[in-house]
Amino acid sequence: MDKQQIAERYKTIQDSICSALEVLDGGATFAEELWQREGGGGGRTRIIQQGNVIERGGVNFSAVHGVLPEPVKKAFTVRDEEFFATGVSIVIHPHNPFVPIIHMNIRYFELNENIRWFGGGIDLTPHYVQLGDASFFHQALKAVCDRYSPVFYPDFKAHADRYFFIKHRQETRGIGGVFYDRLTPEKTGVAWSDIFEFSCALGNEFVPIYAELVNRNRDKAFTEQHKQWQYLRRGRYVEFNLVYDAGTKFGLETNGRIESILMSLPPQAQWVYDFKPSPGSDEAFTLSMLRQGVDWLTY
Amino acid sequence: MDKQQIAERYKTIQDSICSALEVLDGGATFAEELWQREGGGGGRTRIIQQGNVIERGGVNFSAVHGVLPEPVKKAFTVRDEEFFATGVSIVIHPHNPFVPIIHMNIRYFELNENIRWFGGGIDLTPHYVQLGDASFFHQALKAVCDRYSPVFYPDFKAHADRYFFIKHRQETRGIGGVFYDRLTPEKTGVAWSDIFEFSCALGNEFVPIYAELVNRNRDKAFTEQHKQWQYLRRGRYVEFNLVYDAGTKFGLETNGRIESILMSLPPQAQWVYDFKPSPGSDEAFTLSMLRQGVDWLTY
Repeated sequence: MDKQQIAERYKTIQDSICSALEVLDGGATFAEELWQREGGGGGRTRIIQQGNVIERGGVNFSAVHGVLPEPVKKAFTVRDEEFFATGVSIVIHPHNPFVPIIHMNIRYFELNENIRWFGGGIDLTPHYVQLGDASFFHQALKAVCDRYSPVFYPDFKAHADRYFFIKHRQETRGIGGVFYDRLTPEKTGVAWSDIFEFSCALGNEFVPIYAELVNRNRDKAFTEQHKQWQYLRRGRYVEFNLVYDAGTKFGLETNGRIESILMSLPPQAQWVYDFKPSPGSDEAFTLSMLRQGVDWLTY
Repeated sequence: MDKQQIAERYKTIQDSICSALEVLDGGATFAEELWQREGGGGGRTRIIQQGNVIERGGVNFSAVHGVLPEPVKKAFTVRDEEFFATGVSIVIHPHNPFVPIIHMNIRYFELNENIRWFGGGIDLTPHYVQLGDASFFHQALKAVCDRYSPVFYPDFKAHADRYFFIKHRQETRGIGGVFYDRLTPEKTGVAWSDIFEFSCALGNEFVPIYAELVNRNRDKAFTEQHKQWQYLRRGRYVEFNLVYDAGTKFGLETNGRIESILMSLPPQAQWVYDFKPSPGSDEAFTLSMLRQGVDWLTY
């Protein structure tokens, strides 16, 4: 498969995820903006807002190419090179605080047509950790991973734990998931075509996973207090994305399309000085579970 | 003056600012938390919330010392050294969208008892730019600066324009103000004692300046639409503080007291995908003024 084929497949994944999310939501539809990148390529930003389930979500596709931007060259310690990057990235912020925030990203990167790799992942940020949902989520990811390599799930789960970590809070962003980067046959013993198929399988698993989590929780009643907690957790999401997220940093430093990059931020967020949930509350339980190294499969 | 005297003066400035802000607000009072830093020193975090005017504000004093943290040593390219740092820092988020957000910071830093400097500044972030207020604000800052050196205001005003800039939005955070860093007699031709007095004068000017801006605007009627715009501007404040602010980055990297560092974040913020104010609106006017190099004195 070549880069054009990869981009085409990712595009169809964006299409099928958008159609399915519209059905799942049952209220709102996606609005699309096509954009072009000065220097080469472009993308399709798709935003869904004020739906029955989804308060705001973005499902973006891009395929960009050109000369590597200066800050990236430094990070990779390479000289002038032609790059190509394509991917699909998703963030969904639901209305109901019992429905989790979800994030997915699958991407392919090529440098000078000889260095290349796949990256991506799916991670879940429940406002309220519910062990049954967490276990379902990780089992579904493990099932996809296991079809390609027995080390994928444990490796990528551990990577997600390290990556989705808010160091200054000593909290994970949510219950993690899988995260992988710079995946090559040399590193994994898995053929290029299978690594590619793995990334597509992950993309295709997004809807069944999220649909199940939405349907389990979409009709749960919630109070103003639950909403307040949701806004605080969204505040943490903002902190992670602006302080640590590599994709966001990359986008901001390389003059990416700002509205597409920051669509990951929630519709609204709150910060309460030194908030501490009452002992024994659902909020305290959630906080106690936001740590690295939890084996979610066992719940 | 030695470092203890500087810290003591800064402490009295914190005290007088807090007392005056309580009078100005007329509703809420400050709650204080004393904290100690592992490694040396500590501080007094003071938070005022849900007042008549102030939705949340923090007026913090700290005086810390010890061995320079690793990331800072790298940034300064120095080896193991004893440091001392003291300062007062303030951020006020008002309820009324016509009352501006204000930030002040005065600080003194010492390395190994031979390298030392003063830093600080005051900057204003109106949700709605009002030219009369902007002009009053800059004239008041210029008057303080001019008492110490004719180059202070133009230099520090230009520095604030460069510093309080949201690069990825190509917008300034607000209408700037003054910002100075690593101020020494060698750099300025101003004696240590006068640089110190300048920093105190700036601290003492905070209340008269903010009181005037509050009293001009505190009783203005506002609508839900004005509040929405305020939340969007607060979103930009979050973006600046988490992505660019040197003090915040320093605090997060050096395991500072997280609640004191992030008290600068607003009580709540919003992000609307690709929001564009209607042409000719007050919001559009504000956006048009959020740029570097505006001579606010002339309005």
